[in-house]
Amino acid sequence: MATSNKVVDVHTHMYPPAYVRILESRDEIPLIRRFAGAKDPRYIILPSEASADEINDTVTTKDTANLPGRPVTTHYSSVAQKIHFMDTHKIDISVISLANPWLDFVAADEAAATAQTVNGDFSSMCAAHPGRLFFFATLPLTAPPAALLEAVAHVKTLPYCRGVILGTTGLGKGLDDPELLPVLTALAANELPVFLHPHYGLPSEVWGPRAADEYGHVLPLALGFPMETTIAVARMYLAGVFDAVPGLRMLLAHSGGTLPFLAGRIESCIVHDGHLVRAGKVGPQRRTIWQVLREQIYLDAVIYSEVGLQAAVAASGADRLMFGTDHPFFPPLNSDEQGVWESMTWNLEAAKKALGDGSKETAAVMGGNAVRILKLYGDS
Amino acid sequence: MATSNKVVDVHTHMYPPAYVRILESRDEIPLIRRFAGAKDPRYIILPSEASADEINDTVTTKDTANLPGRPVTTHYSSVAQKIHFMDTHKIDISVISLANPWLDFVAADEAAATAQTVNGDFSSMCAAHPGRLFFFATLPLTAPPAALLEAVAHVKTLPYCRGVILGTTGLGKGLDDPELLPVLTALAANELPVFLHPHYGLPSEVWGPRAADEYGHVLPLALGFPMETTIAVARMYLAGVFDAVPGLRMLLAHSGGTLPFLAGRIESCIVHDGHLVRAGKVGPQRRTIWQVLREQIYLDAVIYSEVGLQAAVAASGADRLMFGTDHPFFPPLNSDEQGVWESMTWNLEAAKKALGDGSKETAAVMGGNAVRILKLYGDS
Repeated sequence: MATSNKVVDVHTHMYPPAYVRILESRDEIPLIRRFAGAKDPRYIILPSEASADEINDTVTTKDTANLPGRPVTTHYSSVAQKIHFMDTHKIDISVISLANPWLDFVAADEAAATAQTVNGDFSSMCAAHPGRLFFFATLPLTAPPAALLEAVAHVKTLPYCRGVILGTTGLGKGLDDPELLPVLTALAANELPVFLHPHYGLPSEVWGPRAADEYGHVLPLALGFPMETTIAVARMYLAGVFDAVPGLRMLLAHSGGTLPFLAGRIESCIVHDGHLVRAGKVGPQRRTIWQVLREQIYLDAVIYSEVGLQAAVAASGADRLMFGTDHPFFPPLNSDEQGVWESMTWNLEAAKKALGDGSKETAAVMGGNAVRILKLYGDS
Repeated sequence: MATSNKVVDVHTHMYPPAYVRILESRDEIPLIRRFAGAKDPRYIILPSEASADEINDTVTTKDTANLPGRPVTTHYSSVAQKIHFMDTHKIDISVISLANPWLDFVAADEAAATAQTVNGDFSSMCAAHPGRLFFFATLPLTAPPAALLEAVAHVKTLPYCRGVILGTTGLGKGLDDPELLPVLTALAANELPVFLHPHYGLPSEVWGPRAADEYGHVLPLALGFPMETTIAVARMYLAGVFDAVPGLRMLLAHSGGTLPFLAGRIESCIVHDGHLVRAGKVGPQRRTIWQVLREQIYLDAVIYSEVGLQAAVAASGADRLMFGTDHPFFPPLNSDEQGVWESMTWNLEAAKKALGDGSKETAAVMGGNAVRILKLYGDS
C-alpha cells in the first residue's frame, strides 16, 4: 500500500452559518452573545462558563478582558481562515466537523431538518476547496428513530462526508443504550466511522469549591473531557457494543481520553470481578479491551506530549493514530492568532519525539493513516 | 549509592483488629457483615455495593454466590497471611497501610484515639516481623486541628512508620483546601511522605443506568479510582500546594491515576487559559506539572500493563516508580488464593516489558527505589 506524505488534521472544527444562527438565537447555553465593548461575539459552550446574569445582561460588565466564554473569531466560521491556518501549518487536508454540543439541544421535530442544513453547509465548504477539505457529518440524535436512520443514509450520499461526529450521550442514555444499536449498525453498514468527541465532562462538584473562581477552565477541559470519553467507551465495551456491531469503527478524540493508560487496569478489574465472572462474561471467547483497541478503534494524536502519544501508539498501533489540532480552540494567547499555534507544534513535536523525526511511523500518524483509513481522495 | 535488589511492595493493605472491630459495629457503609450460610463475613466498602435492605436483613438472600461486597478472608487481617503472600511472590518487604476509607467516617471526638490505636496495631504488626514490614500511618482527619497536628508528630515517633496514607477528601473539601496546608506542612517538616489513595471515585450517575446491574464494579474501580486521584492532584497543583509546601513528597496510587497520560493536556489547557494568563498564573516562574512530577511526586507501579507503566516512567523517571500489588484486593477467582495472584504477575511483567528483564531500572522499580526513598532499613 502506498504511503501518503500528506499532513492531515482529523480533529478540527467549523461552525457553519446555519449553526451560528441557531446559537445566536438562543437564550440558554450553548449560545453566542454580543457584549457591549467587545470586538467579537462570545461563544459560551458549557454551563459552568457563565451565569444567567452574565448572559442576559449584556451591558453590566465593563471588563471586556473577563467576559465569559471565548471570542467567536473568523477562525470559527470562515473557510478562508481555516485554509490560512492549514497553509500556515503545512496541513494538506482537514477533516472538519461541527464542535460540541452539536445538535444535542435541538427539538425533536426540528432536528432532522437542522442536521440536513448544517451538513449541507459542510458539504459546500468542502466543495469550495476540493481535495483539501472533507468532513464528519452531524446526526440529528434527538429526532424520531426513523428520521435518525434516514439521516444516516442521507449523510452517506453527501460529497466529502467521511464519517459522523458523535458526543457521548447518544439518544440521552449514553452509547451503551440498546436503543442506539440500530444507529450504530446503520453507520457500520454504511462504512461511516464515528468520531467520538466529549462535551459534558464530569459533574461539576468533582472540581471542588475553588475551581470556578481560581482554576479557569483547566479542570473540565483537561480532565473532564478525556475522562468522559474514557467512560463512554468503557461502557460500550462492557455492554458488548463492539461485538454486537463488529463493523463499527470509532475514532476517539484526545488519544482515547485516558483509555490507553487505563486499559491494563480495566482488564484487571474485569478478570477479578466476581459478578462478571459468575455471569459468564469473562470466558475465553471474550475480546480484551486491548483487542478492541486494535480492531475497532482509532485514536487521534491530540495529546500534547510524547509521553501520552507513546502510550496511545503502544495501545492501538502506529497505524491507527491520526494527527489533529482541535482548531479553532486553544488559540495562542501571547502571539498573533494568524501565526503559529501550539496545538500544531506541540502535537507535531510529540509525534516526532515518540516515533522519530522523519520516520515512516511519524508520516503515518501525521497523515498517511488518515488518508488510508478515511479514504481522503477522489473528487467528492 | 548502593542499589538494593530487594523486592518491595509499597501498595498493600492490612485491616488491624481495632479497625475490623469498628467496621463490624457499624450500621452504615463502610461495614463488615456476616450473612447466613456464608463462610466469611463480607466487607462492603462503597455505597454502590449494597442496598440498605441487603445490609440490614442478613437472611433474605440464599444465594451466597451473590452477596454484596467482598469476603473478609484472613488476607485482610492476618499478618501470617501477609507474610505467606510475600513469601509466595518473593516480596522481601511490604509497606502496609490501612485501606480506604480509613477513618473518614469517625466522629471528631473519637478520631485521635482511634487513629492512635490503629497505628499502634500497625506498629506491632511490623515489630513481629522486623525488617520485612514497615507501614504508612493513618491520620485522624476528622479530629480538631490541634489534635490532628499532634497526630502527625506522634506517628513520626512510631517504630516502622515511613509516611502516612491519605484519601482525597482532606478535611472534607479536598486536598486544595487552604486549611489543610498546616497538616501538609507538618508532614513535610517531619519528612513523612504521603501515600495518596482514592476511595470516593466519581458520582455514580456517570456510569449510566446499566452499570449497577451489568458491569459489576469495573467502572468505579477501574476508572473512578484513578480519575479521583488525578483530579485531586491537579487541584493541588492549580492551587499552588506543591509550591507552598516544597518539602511535600507524595506517592500516588495506581501510577498517578491518569496523570502521566494527561499531563500534556493539562499543560496545554493551562497555557491556553485566558483566566489564568490574565491572573498572572502562567508566568516564567511557574513550575510545570512535569516538573512537579519529577520533583515532588512518586508513582506506584500498580498499573497492570507495560503501556501505562512506560508512560509513568516517562513522566516521573524510573527512579521514582515503586512496585505494588494492592493485596488483599483482587484475589484470583479461578485459582487457589494461597497461590499466585495476577496483581503480582501482571505488574511484575509490566515492569520487565517496559524496562527490561534483569535491568537496573527494573530492579529499581521492583524495590531499590522504595528502599532508598522510604528508608526501609534499620531496626525500627
